[in-house]
Amino acid sequence: MKDLVGIKELSKDKIKLILDTASSFKDVLKRDIKKVPALRGKTVVNLFFEPSTRTKTSFELAEKRLSMDVLNFSVPTSSVVKGESLFDTIKTIEAYGVDFIVIRHSSSGAPHFIARNVDASVINAGDGINEHPTQALLDAFSILERKGSLKGLNIAIVGDILHSRVAKSNIYLLSKFGANIRLIGPPTLVPEMTDYHIDVFYEMDEGLKDADVIMMLRIQMERQGKGFFPSTLEYFKNWGLDMRRLKLAKKDAIVMHPGPMNRGIEISSDVADSEQSIILEQVTNGLAVRMAVMYLLKKESENA
Amino acid sequence: MKDLVGIKELSKDKIKLILDTASSFKDVLKRDIKKVPALRGKTVVNLFFEPSTRTKTSFELAEKRLSMDVLNFSVPTSSVVKGESLFDTIKTIEAYGVDFIVIRHSSSGAPHFIARNVDASVINAGDGINEHPTQALLDAFSILERKGSLKGLNIAIVGDILHSRVAKSNIYLLSKFGANIRLIGPPTLVPEMTDYHIDVFYEMDEGLKDADVIMMLRIQMERQGKGFFPSTLEYFKNWGLDMRRLKLAKKDAIVMHPGPMNRGIEISSDVADSEQSIILEQVTNGLAVRMAVMYLLKKESENA
Amino acid sequence: MKDLVGIKELSKDKIKLILDTASSFKDVLKRDIKKVPALRGKTVVNLFFEPSTRTKTSFELAEKRLSMDVLNFSVPTSSVVKGESLFDTIKTIEAYGVDFIVIRHSSSGAPHFIARNVDASVINAGDGINEHPTQALLDAFSILERKGSLKGLNIAIVGDILHSRVAKSNIYLLSKFGANIRLIGPPTLVPEMTDYHIDVFYEMDEGLKDADVIMMLRIQMERQGKGFFPSTLEYFKNWGLDMRRLKLAKKDAIVMHPGPMNRGIEISSDVADSEQSIILEQVTNGLAVRMAVMYLLKKESENA
Repeated sequence: MKDLVGIKELSKDKIKLILDTASSFKDVLKRDIKKVPALRGKTVVNLFFEPSTRTKTSFELAEKRLSMDVLNFSVPTSSVVKGESLFDTIKTIEAYGVDFIVIRHSSSGAPHFIARNVDASVINAGDGINEHPTQALLDAFSILERKGSLKGLNIAIVGDILHSRVAKSNIYLLSKFGANIRLIGPPTLVPEMTDYHIDVFYEMDEGLKDADVIMMLRIQMERQGKGFFPSTLEYFKNWGLDMRRLKLAKKDAIVMHPGPMNRGIEISSDVADSEQSIILEQVTNGLAVRMAVMYLLKKESENA
Repeated sequence: MKDLVGIKELSKDKIKLILDTASSFKDVLKRDIKKVPALRGKTVVNLFFEPSTRTKTSFELAEKRLSMDVLNFSVPTSSVVKGESLFDTIKTIEAYGVDFIVIRHSSSGAPHFIARNVDASVINAGDGINEHPTQALLDAFSILERKGSLKGLNIAIVGDILHSRVAKSNIYLLSKFGANIRLIGPPTLVPEMTDYHIDVFYEMDEGLKDADVIMMLRIQMERQGKGFFPSTLEYFKNWGLDMRRLKLAKKDAIVMHPGPMNRGIEISSDVADSEQSIILEQVTNGLAVRMAVMYLLKKESENA
Repeated sequence: MKDLVGIKELSKDKIKLILDTASSFKDVLKRDIKKVPALRGKTVVNLFFEPSTRTKTSFELAEKRLSMDVLNFSVPTSSVVKGESLFDTIKTIEAYGVDFIVIRHSSSGAPHFIARNVDASVINAGDGINEHPTQALLDAFSILERKGSLKGLNIAIVGDILHSRVAKSNIYLLSKFGANIRLIGPPTLVPEMTDYHIDVFYEMDEGLKDADVIMMLRIQMERQGKGFFPSTLEYFKNWGLDMRRLKLAKKDAIVMHPGPMNRGIEISSDVADSEQSIILEQVTNGLAVRMAVMYLLKKESENA
C-alpha cells in the first residue's frame, strides 16, 4: 500500500492493522514520550487547497512526533500557484524528493489522480464530497476503545450526509465491520446508497432509538440559504441533538462529532459537554491514527 | 506557577527568578550556542488572534532554541475556525496534548479564561488593552542591564497609555520594584490609576526632566481619526521624542520602544538611532526572557 | 563572500565552487540521505515581500536538509509590519541573532541594501526586475549536467526579457562562461544590453535555429493588458514553443523553464512533457544549489 486515498477500497485487514498500530502509538504518547524517531529525515508536504485548521494541525503534529520535516504549502486562493495546473504543482513537489503528500482538495478524486502520478505516498485529508479516510479511521478507533467491537452496533449518522465526506468514509468502514448503520436527516440531504445495508430515517426521534453510537455531522453554515437548507433554528428543532433526544438512545450510547461544532445548531451544549460525549477523545485519537497511517505507508513502500 | 498571564499578580520573587534565568540564557546565546535541549519533545501552539510579526517571531525563535516542536495556529479572520467558540478551540488544542499555549487575543482576560480551562501552560502574548507581560519583563531586563537597579529610577512612559497593554504591564512591574513612574500624554489617553504611586504629566517637556528612562509607546495608526486622536503631525509636535526633548532628561538617560516604530510620529529618527537608544537590545533580550519564562513554567509544572 | 545578492558581481571561480559543491550535495541527496547536520543550530529567516510558492519551498527544504531552524516571515500585504521601514524590520531581525536572511522584494536593490546593513548572510531570492541569482545557478548546473560545458553553446532565452530577473541573472552568468546568448521576444520586451555580446531576434523561428538550449520565460499574466502585451493567443502564435519550432533547434537541444508554466501560452504541453524538457530536473537541482550556497556562505563567513 503506497497511498491512503479512501476507505472504500481498503481491506478489513489493512484497517485492522492501522487501528492496532494506532493503539501502540497511543500508548507511547500516553507515557509522555512525545516524539519517536520513526520517520526522521523524511519530508512531508501538507497541501491544503481548502482552508483547514483542525485536520491540518492534527497531521502536522503527527508528522512532527514522527520526527519528519514538515512543509506547509497552503493554497489560500487561486493566485498562489499562479495558474499552474494541479499536475504541474504535484510534479514539482515530487521533484523536490518529498516522501509524503497530504492533500485536501475541493475536487472529489484529486488525491487519487495525484497518487497515480507520483512516487511519494499520498494521503487524502478530504476530497470534495467523496472521502475523508483518516477521520473514519479515528472514529472507528474511538468507538472500539469504548465498545470493544463494531459488529452489530447501532450507529446513527445525523445531518447533511449527502455533502459529507466524513459520513461517506464512515459508512464504507462501518459496513465492512458489520455495524448497523442508520442515516438520519432531511430527505434532500440523505443520499441513496443502495449498495450498502443501511436504514434511512427522516424522523430523528425514531432513528435514535436504541442507538449505541450517535455521530453528529457539522452543518456547513457556508451552504446555508442555498435552497435545500432550512434555517438554523428550524434545523436544530428537527435534527439537533439535545438531552431529550439523547435519552432515546441506549443508556450507554456515545456521542461523536468531527468538529468544529456549531453549538446550538446541530448539537446542544449540554450534550457536547456530557459524559456520553467522546468528542475530545476523537481529537486525541486522531493524532495516533495519523501517526500509524504514515508509519505503515512508509514501512510498506520500503518493503515494496 | 503554571501560567504567565499577567505581571499584576506576579510576586517580586518570581519576577527576579525570571530575570536571573533570562540572564543565564543570554550568556548562552552570546557564546553562539543557539540551541539548548531543555524542552526537547515538548510542543507549543502559538495562537495569535491578532496579527503580529514581532512578538510571534520572538516567541517562535525562543521556542526553537529550546528545541520545542512549534505549531503556528494563526487566526487571521473569523472563518478559520469556522464559528467555533474559543472554548472549543482551546479544548481541542488541549486534546492534542500540547505543553504550551502562547496566546494573543483582542479580548482582555482571554488568556486567564484559557489558563483556568487547560492543563497546558498558558503564556499571554498580549490581551486587549490589559497586559503584555513578557514585554514588561524584557523591558525590566533591558533597564537592569544598563542601570543595575530599578529602585528610585525616574521612568517616563509616553503616549497612548490608556490603550497600551505594554504600558500597563510595565506600570505593574516597575511599581513593585520602587521605580518613580511618570505617565506623559494627552489627558484623553492617560488613565487614572489611583492605586499606584504615579505622576501624570500633560506637558512632555516637564515630564521628561531628570528622567533616567524614557519609554516611548507606539501610536496605533489604526485608531487615528476616531475622535480622541490628534493628527500625526500635531502628535509629534506635542508628544514626539526628538533630540531637543531628549536633552531634558538625564545625560545618561536611555530610550526604549516596544516596536514597531513610527519614525517621525512618536520618535524622531536621530533619537531612534542615537547611542542612548536601546531599542534593538530590547529585541535581543526578548528572546532570552521568553526562553526563561517557558523554561521555568515547565520546570515548575513538573515539580507541582 | 558574506552574501549572494547577484550574479553580475560574482567571479567565475566562485560560481564554479558553488556548482561543484552543489554536485556533492546532489550526490548525497541521491543516496537517500535527506538530511545533513552541516548547519545545525543556525537560524534562517525567509523574508518574502512578494508572494512565492516555488522558490520559497525550495529554499525552505534546502534549509531543513541542512538541519537549520527556519522562520518564515511572510509579508503578504502592507499592514503586517505596521508601517515599519524595511531598515527597522531588518535591524530587528538581526537583533534576534539570525544567521541567514533569504529575501524576495519587489524593489531592485533591496537585498544589496540589507546586505550592507546586517552581519547575517543575505541571499537574494529575487529583487524586482534585477536579479534572481540562485535560479541562474541552478540553470547553469542543469545545463552542465546535460552538456558538460557552457562555452560555445547556443542558448536562446525567449519571452519578456525586459521584466525578467531570471533572464538577467542568466545573461550575466552565461556571458562569463562564453556561451552564445540569443534573446528572442517582441521588440518592446527585449532590453538593449550593449555591454554584453548578445544576439537579438524578433522572429522566433530564426532565433531558435541550431540552439543547444532553449530557456522559456514565464509570461506574467498579471502584466497582461497593460499596453505592451499582446493577447495570450497571439503571444503563443508568435513566441510560444511548440513541437514544430523545437525541431528548428539542434536535435539534442534541451528545453528549460523556471516555472510555474503557463501551458498553451508560452509553451505547449507536448514540449513541456517531451524528453528534451529538463524542467523537473531544474526543480531537483534547485535544492542542491541552494544547499551549496548556504553551506559556502557560512563556511566563508566563519573563516573571515
